[in-house]
Amino acid sequence: MPTYRLDLSYDGSGFRGYARQPDVRTVQGELEAALARILEPVSTAVAGRTDAGVHARHQVVSFHTETPVDCRRLPFSLTRLLGPEVVVYRCRRVPDGFSARFDAARRTYRYRILDRPHPDPLRRFTVWHVAHPLDAASMNETAGYFVGEHDFASFCRKAEGRSTVRTVTSAGWRRLPDGLLCLEIEGLAFCHQMVRSIAAFSVEVGRGRLAPEEAVRVLEARDRNAARGAAPPHGLVLWRVDYDVAFGNEHR
Amino acid sequence: MPTYRLDLSYDGSGFRGYARQPDVRTVQGELEAALARILEPVSTAVAGRTDAGVHARHQVVSFHTETPVDCRRLPFSLTRLLGPEVVVYRCRRVPDGFSARFDAARRTYRYRILDRPHPDPLRRFTVWHVAHPLDAASMNETAGYFVGEHDFASFCRKAEGRSTVRTVTSAGWRRLPDGLLCLEIEGLAFCHQMVRSIAAFSVEVGRGRLAPEEAVRVLEARDRNAARGAAPPHGLVLWRVDYDVAFGNEHR
Repeated sequence: MPTYRLDLSYDGSGFRGYARQPDVRTVQGELEAALARILEPVSTAVAGRTDAGVHARHQVVSFHTETPVDCRRLPFSLTRLLGPEVVVYRCRRVPDGFSARFDAARRTYRYRILDRPHPDPLRRFTVWHVAHPLDAASMNETAGYFVGEHDFASFCRKAEGRSTVRTVTSAGWRRLPDGLLCLEIEGLAFCHQMVRSIAAFSVEVGRGRLAPEEAVRVLEARDRNAARGAAPPHGLVLWRVDYDVAFGNEHR
Repeated sequence: MPTYRLDLSYDGSGFRGYARQPDVRTVQGELEAALARILEPVSTAVAGRTDAGVHARHQVVSFHTETPVDCRRLPFSLTRLLGPEVVVYRCRRVPDGFSARFDAARRTYRYRILDRPHPDPLRRFTVWHVAHPLDAASMNETAGYFVGEHDFASFCRKAEGRSTVRTVTSAGWRRLPDGLLCLEIEGLAFCHQMVRSIAAFSVEVGRGRLAPEEAVRVLEARDRNAARGAAPPHGLVLWRVDYDVAFGNEHR
């Protein structure tokens, strides 16, 4: 069946996450309702099932339909229905059978922190405020221990019977020009709460309460209680999803 | 009387501007109510009376009081009362008689625009979305015509009997690393809606509908109808206020 790919951004603040659930407002629920109004009921696949409160700068969704799709108009029609919190900015026909979920080659997340005594009212929905100065160099050092294939059981919320082995292809903290501390982390896939758990652990290192190399011990423990919980969702953004060129890889 | 200076930030979205007005929510109204609870009723002076919906990264307020003020605690106490939209991040005692309004040596504003077909849900409260590509070079050229002493009557909302002559000490548009187009404009003082009117005019230049040097003709017309109205308030941020060193000039 003809297959389409949508690229979108959203502010996760007002949603109970991406994935559809009964009786609550989710991005998938709203998006599928809008697609049903414009085209027909379709079921969608998604690159990253973000948690409640997590944002997406670049998310990818796919669906199959026999109904003709005008890809020049669809982004505008969807955005009009979905309102300012969700913006669908691209539509393209892709090879039949494409899945935004299974064909993704790499997912990139950013976690952003403001480390100073007072919060910033203009960035309070997209940045975690930590009222202590953090040392970017030691946080960046600890990020290096997460690169490669590891069992991330200590950094994942347990899902019964699912592997917690993942491969992180790159991870680093740096200070952005606007003063924020930013983790950028890339991999094929992440388990539940993994990036937020790495962010929370990194903050302990940045405050000087843990040595960077403690990451090794915590990874080896394979025990959720060995880590430091999860950082709040609003600091996390699904930043980019990459696919092979055949699937329309160029993103903004 | 002992005089104190407060430095603060706010998200202007939920306020009918800075200046106190009866029966509506304003930053000054909330701030003076909080000061009355913590200290005693005081009247405050402010560096920049921002309009409804305009933000401040750095605003300065002053007041006089005989009540002892603990400047280490006051920012936290005020911020706790004022909530996440207003953050008071500094308090210091300054020379008696200091006025945040009359002693300001320079005010700096930024106006930020996202010029691409689709808006960004994560920046929709702080950036003006213009769905056309804009030419930063011609916008920056037109900014140059505003520098110096001019009668800005064409770019001001009329206030009966008040001069509209102002001196702009610097003005320029540039593209920020995150892709936004940003006007930074500095001067001793600005008349009402002046920065937003310059932003709206600049966008017409950036779209190629006006030549940069049209700014000269519009300035000379001294007629509000000769300009292009005002850009929306949510793109505008009072970025910085500078004082002489004696008044505690260092800001974050």
